[in-house]
Amino acid sequence: MIRLFAPDNLEAGAIVAAAPEQAHYLTRVMRLGLGGAVALFNGRDGEWSARISGVSRRGATLTVEGLVRPQTVGPDLDLLVALVKRARLETIIEKATELGARRVRLITTRRTNADHTNVARLTAIAVEAAEQTGRLDVPEIVAPEKLESVLAAWPVDRRLMFCDEAGDASPALTVMTGAAPGVWAILIGPEGGFAPEERAAVRAVPASLAVNLGPNILRADTAAIAALTLWQAALGDWRHAP
Amino acid sequence: MIRLFAPDNLEAGAIVAAAPEQAHYLTRVMRLGLGGAVALFNGRDGEWSARISGVSRRGATLTVEGLVRPQTVGPDLDLLVALVKRARLETIIEKATELGARRVRLITTRRTNADHTNVARLTAIAVEAAEQTGRLDVPEIVAPEKLESVLAAWPVDRRLMFCDEAGDASPALTVMTGAAPGVWAILIGPEGGFAPEERAAVRAVPASLAVNLGPNILRADTAAIAALTLWQAALGDWRHAP
Repeated sequence: MIRLFAPDNLEAGAIVAAAPEQAHYLTRVMRLGLGGAVALFNGRDGEWSARISGVSRRGATLTVEGLVRPQTVGPDLDLLVALVKRARLETIIEKATELGARRVRLITTRRTNADHTNVARLTAIAVEAAEQTGRLDVPEIVAPEKLESVLAAWPVDRRLMFCDEAGDASPALTVMTGAAPGVWAILIGPEGGFAPEERAAVRAVPASLAVNLGPNILRADTAAIAALTLWQAALGDWRHAP
Repeated sequence: MIRLFAPDNLEAGAIVAAAPEQAHYLTRVMRLGLGGAVALFNGRDGEWSARISGVSRRGATLTVEGLVRPQTVGPDLDLLVALVKRARLETIIEKATELGARRVRLITTRRTNADHTNVARLTAIAVEAAEQTGRLDVPEIVAPEKLESVLAAWPVDRRLMFCDEAGDASPALTVMTGAAPGVWAILIGPEGGFAPEERAAVRAVPASLAVNLGPNILRADTAAIAALTLWQAALGDWRHAP
């Protein structure tokens, strides 16, 4: 079943205009015509069945039929990731979407080369990944912020899994299985690592828990995927059989 | 420190010829000259310090100095992965190297579109990833085999973590923390999933343990990275602090 993100309100009988690239995908790539079946979600109203009810040169309209799955909410898990090169950052967005992060916050650090990125493009990658992976929402992509500002405003109730490549942290699984579920974030540094004073600042956040991700040096995208996996397995949606 | 894989025997005083692309990297990209320091490993003799002792238009030679780290052997862990599109397959090779797989075996299944791949190119990716990640060996990349042949010859003593997206398997972390370390493999299916009879054949292997990787549909590369992470965290090198 083709799944599409549609920001409009979804209810029986609603008529939704497919975005131009969605219409192209439906009618040209997947070769659906009038009556073709699609599933729609918007992050609020659950997943709905719909059918193509109009096709023109400029687009397509979809008529919403019935509710297939009620809206569910995944864990309140942020991924904080330093800006890395574009290809790896795009991989991180795709994987964070598959692995159930609710929000991706982009961070600049002393050893981060870039200080901006194309948030709209990253959001489009998150939408496509959400369509593929079966999620009922799309993670929010938050524009780059400075690490020190983020730490200065850190909320007391959000625990922070700090992937600390430089240190003497305990194994990630040991730390995570000893922690409680709830409101969390994961912090992944830039490929050159955090500066010593940044590392100290993160460890000084009362809610932070430093963890070790094995003996090898991991790329930022690998570390992000590994940390999200261990969090989900120990504290998140992966704890229960389907 | 720049690390290079050099297949020659490594011992104090040995003179090693850098491969052409390695020489280009050392002298042009990293701008090292005579006396520049490099670390070498070959998968057998540990990691050695070396210095550039000759540079010409056609290459460079390195003189081996002293042993830096004795050879260590990671867990006996194979990753069996169905052939997927090239970009994702290359990601899987890079990540399997970072995450400590000893061997990657490529598999063809009923729903695999391709039946061949460029093993030399994939091996080059594994070499580069091993250089970056700090491993002392390079995972072997095994040319594509049919799933049914692999299962028919399955060794009794190699347990198989079967990432079963279609089923009622228990959560991966529950299964892995209940299992014993030793000789293992991980099996990841193609993006379209295994055919029902393939799934039944895998589950019929006495050494196989089906596991669930959460509620979302995962890309093959995501599933491979997640499974390797959980295996390492529960049964492998990630159990112990550095």
